[in-house]
Amino acid sequence: MTKGQTLEPQIMAFINNSWAFVRSITGKGVRDTLHEIKKVIPELEIIEAPSGSRIWDWTVPKEWEFNFAYIENDKGIRVIDSEINNLHVVSYSSPINKIMDLKDLDTHLFSIPDKPSVIPYRTTYYENNWGFCIQDSLRKSLEPGNYKVVIDSKFIKGSMSIGEIFIPGKVETEIMFTTYICHPMMANNELSGPAVALALASYLRGQDNYYSYRILFVPETIGSIYFINKNFKNLKRNLLAGYVLTCLGDDLSWSYLPSRVGNTISDKVAKRVLQRLALNYKEFSFMERGSDERQYCSPKIDLPVCSVMRSKYGTYEQYHTSADNLEFISEKGLSDSINFYKEVISEFEGNRVPVMEIHCEPFFSKRKMRNTLGGGNLSNVEKLISDISAFSDGSNDFYEMSKMFRVKIDLIASTVDFLTENKILSIR
Amino acid sequence: MTKGQTLEPQIMAFINNSWAFVRSITGKGVRDTLHEIKKVIPELEIIEAPSGSRIWDWTVPKEWEFNFAYIENDKGIRVIDSEINNLHVVSYSSPINKIMDLKDLDTHLFSIPDKPSVIPYRTTYYENNWGFCIQDSLRKSLEPGNYKVVIDSKFIKGSMSIGEIFIPGKVETEIMFTTYICHPMMANNELSGPAVALALASYLRGQDNYYSYRILFVPETIGSIYFINKNFKNLKRNLLAGYVLTCLGDDLSWSYLPSRVGNTISDKVAKRVLQRLALNYKEFSFMERGSDERQYCSPKIDLPVCSVMRSKYGTYEQYHTSADNLEFISEKGLSDSINFYKEVISEFEGNRVPVMEIHCEPFFSKRKMRNTLGGGNLSNVEKLISDISAFSDGSNDFYEMSKMFRVKIDLIASTVDFLTENKILSIR
Amino acid sequence: MTKGQTLEPQIMAFINNSWAFVRSITGKGVRDTLHEIKKVIPELEIIEAPSGSRIWDWTVPKEWEFNFAYIENDKGIRVIDSEINNLHVVSYSSPINKIMDLKDLDTHLFSIPDKPSVIPYRTTYYENNWGFCIQDSLRKSLEPGNYKVVIDSKFIKGSMSIGEIFIPGKVETEIMFTTYICHPMMANNELSGPAVALALASYLRGQDNYYSYRILFVPETIGSIYFINKNFKNLKRNLLAGYVLTCLGDDLSWSYLPSRVGNTISDKVAKRVLQRLALNYKEFSFMERGSDERQYCSPKIDLPVCSVMRSKYGTYEQYHTSADNLEFISEKGLSDSINFYKEVISEFEGNRVPVMEIHCEPFFSKRKMRNTLGGGNLSNVEKLISDISAFSDGSNDFYEMSKMFRVKIDLIASTVDFLTENKILSIR
Repeated sequence: MTKGQTLEPQIMAFINNSWAFVRSITGKGVRDTLHEIKKVIPELEIIEAPSGSRIWDWTVPKEWEFNFAYIENDKGIRVIDSEINNLHVVSYSSPINKIMDLKDLDTHLFSIPDKPSVIPYRTTYYENNWGFCIQDSLRKSLEPGNYKVVIDSKFIKGSMSIGEIFIPGKVETEIMFTTYICHPMMANNELSGPAVALALASYLRGQDNYYSYRILFVPETIGSIYFINKNFKNLKRNLLAGYVLTCLGDDLSWSYLPSRVGNTISDKVAKRVLQRLALNYKEFSFMERGSDERQYCSPKIDLPVCSVMRSKYGTYEQYHTSADNLEFISEKGLSDSINFYKEVISEFEGNRVPVMEIHCEPFFSKRKMRNTLGGGNLSNVEKLISDISAFSDGSNDFYEMSKMFRVKIDLIASTVDFLTENKILSIR
Repeated sequence: MTKGQTLEPQIMAFINNSWAFVRSITGKGVRDTLHEIKKVIPELEIIEAPSGSRIWDWTVPKEWEFNFAYIENDKGIRVIDSEINNLHVVSYSSPINKIMDLKDLDTHLFSIPDKPSVIPYRTTYYENNWGFCIQDSLRKSLEPGNYKVVIDSKFIKGSMSIGEIFIPGKVETEIMFTTYICHPMMANNELSGPAVALALASYLRGQDNYYSYRILFVPETIGSIYFINKNFKNLKRNLLAGYVLTCLGDDLSWSYLPSRVGNTISDKVAKRVLQRLALNYKEFSFMERGSDERQYCSPKIDLPVCSVMRSKYGTYEQYHTSADNLEFISEKGLSDSINFYKEVISEFEGNRVPVMEIHCEPFFSKRKMRNTLGGGNLSNVEKLISDISAFSDGSNDFYEMSKMFRVKIDLIASTVDFLTENKILSIR
Repeated sequence: MTKGQTLEPQIMAFINNSWAFVRSITGKGVRDTLHEIKKVIPELEIIEAPSGSRIWDWTVPKEWEFNFAYIENDKGIRVIDSEINNLHVVSYSSPINKIMDLKDLDTHLFSIPDKPSVIPYRTTYYENNWGFCIQDSLRKSLEPGNYKVVIDSKFIKGSMSIGEIFIPGKVETEIMFTTYICHPMMANNELSGPAVALALASYLRGQDNYYSYRILFVPETIGSIYFINKNFKNLKRNLLAGYVLTCLGDDLSWSYLPSRVGNTISDKVAKRVLQRLALNYKEFSFMERGSDERQYCSPKIDLPVCSVMRSKYGTYEQYHTSADNLEFISEKGLSDSINFYKEVISEFEGNRVPVMEIHCEPFFSKRKMRNTLGGGNLSNVEKLISDISAFSDGSNDFYEMSKMFRVKIDLIASTVDFLTENKILSIR
């Protein structure tokens, strides 16, 4: 990984330790990754969703126990070995141990003719099947003859693991960051997501927050569906905003994928921060969605979730291949992504919607908020106190007020705090 | 009538048979016309609204029994005879049989000095009066002296006749075409309206429809008020869209008269079809209304009804005169009008608002709607299935989806059907 | 005061008689001013709000009884005397009668170094304190030594006086003009406001009005808060529009201060009249508010109140000083302001929102509103009657209709009256 800015050592360690785990939607690879997260954040809770659990249209699949996979030619040479790169085995492959002709083997091989030197990424979650992903150049070099094909795997009635960090704030209203932990050896999509999520959890845990924060590490799709199903009422009541964290490691571009509805508070804050930081970003359409916003924004769920990424999945050449490796991401890329979301957090933490509690103008003088000597001009502070009160009709947040009154958001915030303590305003 | 495109023989027969009936808002002319319609569509139901029925602000008038009317000069020559052109008698004229001086007669004569060769059209529905409409040239040639003036008519306690064809579809939601049958010998305004309505009824009867269709043949104004009064609740519940069919026989132009509200689904579909067919049309304002949209769009009724016409009433020289005859309209004009409304029907039949039935994304794989081998790109079909599901939030109809996903409406429709059969979507 | 256009003598008398009263938020000066108003409008009701009354966040203060105030130097010369200009005493000053050194006195003196020849205006309503306002040039000329400082005032449990003129119209819906009577010897801000209010009351009393009118003379802030508190339900139900009358005497410019919401009917009419009269006005923001719109537009009150002024408070050099005197205002300035608000009244009086009372089109013929001889064109009157009825859906007022139908507002009004008498329309 290209160096540059310095990542926290614990995040670097997480990336290095987790890189080679054979992650899939269930099994040891997921648990080992969660274990690495728990090393950093002991409060991580691990939820085990039993195989066979029915959640709306879906069923949690059996757990995939995978040990190793290889192909040996008739000279006893392992031409493909999952120990070398765990993308070689199609995820969720059934066990096999068989000698077969290249012709038969070939129907189970996956390569990309256009990109002959990379290993593609393939899965077969919901059908009993098996396969190997290989470089197209290697595939072309395989000589006719017999091969010994071994996949040491099995399916057991186990469970799917989900990791959840909840950091309570002063209010139950919460902001969610969700990422996925089901892809094997790939760096931008996916390890960058959990790395950034971990850094944010660590950051949030170290400070007093107004809002509550929830950081989720789930197997993509089935994991988030399970989580939504089990927490639907709470999410509908308390979720102020959510972000899908994915593809956050490269330093090539910024991408914004809106929610289906498109103008939720998540979207507004994401765009505000992108613009404030003067990041040159590409705005995608929800038509180009691809990660867990598919679940959060589905019509009957309808939660305010969007995503800010670096190079978006599906748009860069290395995507879903072995070329999406640690060389593709950088410490600078990850650091900048972490900082972006810290700005998002601070945008939320620094924001409220104040509401007037008093009929007519407050009697500022009796509270020492106004010079009792009248007839002259209001001081700047007196004017700001008056303006904030006058416009606290429930339609203006701190950002609107900052723009209207041309003062910094911090001054809006501290003035609102003062007025709230004095029972002139209350907060939403 | 100019030939060109071929009208169905039954529509031609209807026009020829009905041309000379002495239609007014009640009486034999209306019933004879409905009888001609029933020949083509036996399901036509005839509603008789008794004279004296009170409907909101109005009362159904007595029935006008008219036999003949003429004026004879003192030489025994019939200078005016309703047998020659039934526009000659002012509609709803009281009976008279009297010899009178030209001076007295003249106050009961109506002609248009600017258009000396045509007979105007006049009515006296709501006041006891009588009169003759004549060419201004003829009027000027009448010599002083006595004339025998005969109108053989009477008013009886009878009823007003309304014709109604209801073609049930799969759902109760309905689309209405309404036209009027109360004008004597005039072709564009009015016989073209019933002719097109008849052709549409015949077309709709011959196919399976999703929506129900209602085709109305009413005396203008009082007939539609009666119908609305008797069916108000049903109309408010089920009427998706309605069109007033009038002035549809000439081939000179296209005219669109919006509903009062202006952006109902009737308006949208009308404009969409006009634009799709690249018809060069003039958009009028509701200020220029003139037919039964006056009732359907009145403030306390407020139904989604607009009108697409050829040369609009009041805008062409022949309007409301004997020059609006069978020469003025053409088979091509009528055929194109019929085809226009067939396109409107097909726009509705091809349109639905699908609604998601499943929480989160459907488990497409278990339904064989997605390749179980994951990690690669979605096929076009897989992507379309996913997109339609994701956007079926009740705010998008087929046309919106067609635009968003850049695929033909037929493919949207068939894919939605497929998803509906699979209980992923339901239909509004 | 510069002459020019002629003000009514009674308004001139009011200004001259009231000029020298020592007005403050309570006390004799307010009552004397109300007495002058009652001379012109005997229906004026005076409400006395007892000292100590609690109204929301505020308490009505004790009444300030003020007799005189002066400063005498050690030669016995009165260097400052409230009899010469009553701005000299800080309003609501506590009593004092003491000989003191110039140094101690100086901390109680207020002057404006930038404007050395004017006396500023200061108050100390809500803190026990005392002071003198003087010309900076005079202050600089005071020689060291002892001064006799006398303020003959006291605070008693009395009441705050509010004047209210209610002129009932045909409906309870009301329009309000509110002005304040709590500033001593200043002409534009404030005596111009009560003068214009008085002229409007006199004008309105002399004519039959459709709307009811309420003209308020209140001590600013505390007076309007008291009034709102006591009349909140009525105001929320009946107040169609309200205007704060202040700074209406000079002839230098026009100013419009919107309500907080910004597009109420008060704002619309104010801007319409400003534009119709082609007045070159400056539009301020609610950020620049300063008078009783602060109360009427506060979030929990939210009434439709805005303000059209001449030179706005705080924007002209003479503001809140002795230079805002009778020379600064003019008969022409006051007359034009009165005429402006008369135009506002006539805009309201000439305006209504008619609503259809009949289902479908009215049967115009039976009411002699349509020629019973049908088939020809509608006359202009027939068409207007039809159009007004068709568009009386509750969303169009006279001004909208005037624009739509391209006829004068008077014709709209008289036609609506006619249709209302005929029970076709009703009025909001």
